[in-house]
Amino acid sequence: MTEYSSSPAAPPQEQSTIDLLGLMAYGELSAFERLAYDARFSPTLTDRKMLGALAVSEFAHFERVSAALAGLGADVDAAMEPFQASVDFFHERTRPADWYESLMKAYVSDSISSDFYREVADFLPQAAREVVQSILADSRSGEQLRERIQRALAQEPRLSSRLALWGRRLVGEALTQAQRITIERAVLLGIGVDQDAEVAAVSTPLMARLTQNHSRRMSALGLTA
Amino acid sequence: MTEYSSSPAAPPQEQSTIDLLGLMAYGELSAFERLAYDARFSPTLTDRKMLGALAVSEFAHFERVSAALAGLGADVDAAMEPFQASVDFFHERTRPADWYESLMKAYVSDSISSDFYREVADFLPQAAREVVQSILADSRSGEQLRERIQRALAQEPRLSSRLALWGRRLVGEALTQAQRITIERAVLLGIGVDQDAEVAAVSTPLMARLTQNHSRRMSALGLTA
Repeated sequence: MTEYSSSPAAPPQEQSTIDLLGLMAYGELSAFERLAYDARFSPTLTDRKMLGALAVSEFAHFERVSAALAGLGADVDAAMEPFQASVDFFHERTRPADWYESLMKAYVSDSISSDFYREVADFLPQAAREVVQSILADSRSGEQLRERIQRALAQEPRLSSRLALWGRRLVGEALTQAQRITIERAVLLGIGVDQDAEVAAVSTPLMARLTQNHSRRMSALGLTA
Repeated sequence: MTEYSSSPAAPPQEQSTIDLLGLMAYGELSAFERLAYDARFSPTLTDRKMLGALAVSEFAHFERVSAALAGLGADVDAAMEPFQASVDFFHERTRPADWYESLMKAYVSDSISSDFYREVADFLPQAAREVVQSILADSRSGEQLRERIQRALAQEPRLSSRLALWGRRLVGEALTQAQRITIERAVLLGIGVDQDAEVAAVSTPLMARLTQNHSRRMSALGLTA
C-alpha cells in the first residue's frame, strides 16, 4: 500500500483527493458533536431523537470518509488537521441561541458544505469523485431538516425574521471559511498553490454559486436571504 | 396490541418494565449527547473519534430500548418523561472541567448505571430482564474507557488526586439520583408505592452494593474511592 501523508509531497491529484476527504471528515466529525449536543435543547423528546439520529448519520459519514482515506493509504488525522482551525472557527462564530437556530444552522451548513464538496469533487479523479458523490447522495438529513423548519415557521410565524437574520449570518461565516480554505489549500481545487490568479478565477464564481443556492433555499422557506 | 401508558394504571409488573426501560432510554439518550459534545475537548483526534464512537453506541442502545418499549405498546416519550429531571440534574451537577473528567464521568456513570439496571432487572419478568441483560452485555465501552483512563494516569500521575476527588463527586451525585428514583418510582423495584419500609429494605443494601462496586473499580485504577 502506498503511504500518502497530507504533506505537499503527494502528487497533486492524490493530494486534492486527500484534502477534500480530510475536510469532509473533519466537517462531519464536528457536525456530529455539535448536533448531538444542540439536541438537548429540543422542544420535545421527538425532536431531540430526530437531531440525535441526524448526528449519528453524520458520524457514519465521517466513518465512510475515514475508510476512503485509509484506502488511499492516508493518515486520517493528518488529513483532517489542516482544516480543523477553519471548521472550529466557523462553529465558534455561530453558536445557536436556541433549538430553532440549531436546526437552521444544521440545515444551512449541511447544504452549503454539500454544494461545496460537490463542486470541488468535479476536479477530482473519478474514483475519489464517486466516493464523495455517494456520501452526498444520502440527502435525507437535509429534507428532514427543511420539513422541520417549515413546520416551526408555520406554527410560530414570528420566528421568520430572526431565522432570516440568522441564515444571513450563517452563510456569511460559512463562505468566509470556504474562501479561506480554497485560498490556503488551493490544491483542493486541483490548482497549484502559486497560481493566485487562477485560484481567484475558480473560487469567485464558486462562491457566487454557493450564495445563489443558499438564497434559493431560504426563499423556498419564505425567508429573506 | 395492548396500550400501556406510563401511568400507574398499568399492571405493576408491566409498569416496572416500562419504568426501567424508560429510565434506561433517557439515560442512554442523555449520555449520547453529553459524550458526543465532551469529545470536542479530546487531546488528540484519535481520542475524539473514540468518544464519538462510544456516544454513537449509546444512541444505538437508546434505539434498542425504545424498540423494546414500543414492543410493549408503551409510548417511549411518556416512559422517559418521569426520569428526565433526575438525569438532567445529575448532568448539571457534574459538568466535566476537561477531557479527563469527561472520560472519568463516562466510565463512572456508565458502570454505576449498568450495576443499577442489572440489580433492578432481577425484579422484572423474564422477557424484560432478558432485554435489559442483552443491552448490558455490550460492555466494550466500559473496558475502552478504563484502559484509556489507566493510560492517562500512567502518563500523567498528577491527575490521580484530581480524578479521585472527581470520582467521589460523581458517585455521590449518581447515588443521590438513584436513591431519588427508587423512592419516587418504587414501582421500579416491583414494590407498591405505599410500602415505604419495604422500599428502604431493598434500596439501602442496593445503594451499599453500588458504592462497593464503585470503590472496587476506583481501587483497580489506583485511585482512592
